[in-house]
Amino acid sequence: MLESLDHTAVAVPSIDESLRFYRDVLGLVVAHRETVRDQGVEAALLDIGDSHLELIAPLGPDTGVARFLAQRGPGLHHVAYRVRDIEAVLASLSAAGVRLIDERPRTGIRGSRVAFLHPSATGGVLTEIVEPAHHQ
Amino acid sequence: MLESLDHTAVAVPSIDESLRFYRDVLGLVVAHRETVRDQGVEAALLDIGDSHLELIAPLGPDTGVARFLAQRGPGLHHVAYRVRDIEAVLASLSAAGVRLIDERPRTGIRGSRVAFLHPSATGGVLTEIVEPAHHQ
Repeated sequence: MLESLDHTAVAVPSIDESLRFYRDVLGLVVAHRETVRDQGVEAALLDIGDSHLELIAPLGPDTGVARFLAQRGPGLHHVAYRVRDIEAVLASLSAAGVRLIDERPRTGIRGSRVAFLHPSATGGVLTEIVEPAHHQ
Repeated sequence: MLESLDHTAVAVPSIDESLRFYRDVLGLVVAHRETVRDQGVEAALLDIGDSHLELIAPLGPDTGVARFLAQRGPGLHHVAYRVRDIEAVLASLSAAGVRLIDERPRTGIRGSRVAFLHPSATGGVLTEIVEPAHHQ
């Protein structure tokens, strides 16, 4: 059902500030930057093997990530698994009684299709499934 | 410096209970289980592509993971990057002024050598580097 660990996402107050550590000290390469308005974030994907570290910073105070930062401070925000056929995976999860945030895929970073599972279904972990765009 | 995302770790009250979701619903395969006394945890590694999801449950109430669960509830605990030469990476991080929890490697799961970076150095993310045992 799941192909690989697509990315681990870290909520940060500022992408540029975080890049001083992740890019300049750890040497990770920034593969992509994008404003994902639907999720209220500015995001950067850093290559790490076949996976990515995703840095996400809130676009404004009235966003989920801003609330996360206010409540818990910067840190690990969610984990995302790569899938081949997101509709099939969502159907399978629904059939298994897994509580979903997104019943249908929405557009994620780099033209991917994504859906979030509810943390109550996964033992407290905000979990995303990602079907990458075909050109990737 | 970093080869790949070795694992993302999730703190849970009970490995067996969590496997009902991660193994039985998501279909991930348990590659390894081990009691890591040095870290006060029972751990399970589940294969996901070239990475792992690591489930960690506390061995007792006076452990770091038990305190994490009491304070924050179950959820994402740390992220671990695979490296080829852990001493060289630690030396490089030290030279860059990165605050380390472990100045020297200690033994991790499956005979790996591991070290933790302090969350204050990484923007709030407990970060581990892992040099796998040679037989892996």
